[in-house]
Amino acid sequence: MDSKPSFPGIVAASVAPRVKPSNYPEPFASRMSGRVKRALGDCFGLTNFGVNLTRLAPGAVSALRHAHAKQDEFIYVLEGHPSLVTDAGEQVLAPGMCAGFKAGTGDGHHLVNRTPTDVLYLEVGDRSAGDTAVYPDDDLQAVMVDGQWRFLHKNGIAY
Amino acid sequence: MDSKPSFPGIVAASVAPRVKPSNYPEPFASRMSGRVKRALGDCFGLTNFGVNLTRLAPGAVSALRHAHAKQDEFIYVLEGHPSLVTDAGEQVLAPGMCAGFKAGTGDGHHLVNRTPTDVLYLEVGDRSAGDTAVYPDDDLQAVMVDGQWRFLHKNGIAY
Repeated sequence: MDSKPSFPGIVAASVAPRVKPSNYPEPFASRMSGRVKRALGDCFGLTNFGVNLTRLAPGAVSALRHAHAKQDEFIYVLEGHPSLVTDAGEQVLAPGMCAGFKAGTGDGHHLVNRTPTDVLYLEVGDRSAGDTAVYPDDDLQAVMVDGQWRFLHKNGIAY
Repeated sequence: MDSKPSFPGIVAASVAPRVKPSNYPEPFASRMSGRVKRALGDCFGLTNFGVNLTRLAPGAVSALRHAHAKQDEFIYVLEGHPSLVTDAGEQVLAPGMCAGFKAGTGDGHHLVNRTPTDVLYLEVGDRSAGDTAVYPDDDLQAVMVDGQWRFLHKNGIAY
């Protein structure tokens, strides 16, 4: 039996896409069509943070606009020109541009592909305990319980 | 006074390089010449993890070969063909390839640029408390104390 360790490096685009397209309840899950996530960090057994390679078809969005209470987030654009929407308005990004979103600011963010070509980017987020998320533009809030997101209306009623 | 929030996105390559080229004691710090790190995550006030844009000139290395006890690490190659050295041997990577290094495995890793052209990659690492690092090829060990690395010989004597 050969116990020699295997080479760790992989081609990111060869990782199988995430099977479940979205964790959101309807009507929000359907709005994530055209978004494909490849969970790169999970491939290596990483648990302290996740790294996804995410592709947005024309018209697709990265997520509902949201802000985390505990989780820092970071994105780096590899291909295409996504629009980054925050309280500041819309900023068109380009390959080689990046942005970070410190937990707790309350300034919601997401990417929207308003172009006729695909967008490809890396997204990083840690897995801090006790996280919650707010969604300024939608009737939604989220609470992390036992490693799973639970989604509620803004009035606290579960979806 | 204009209190409108500013656009968050930035050009990663425009971030100023880290001023201190290396935290290692000599003779190891000098071996990091040709390595330039841009601390992207810090630009946005992120504290749960760091993201660096790191350039390796021909002959440069990413770090001494090392393994963390608590910190997960991840790299994504943007330009060039670094050699990834682990217990498995050497694997030549290419743009679009990535690798992750789960904390606690003890399998040391680093990148070496054995080519005549620059290597550019993103590196991600969390900031878990109580981290330590081992260096299989060098007379060195490291302990994180109050957010600062302290470096010791393998016999426990401080540098």
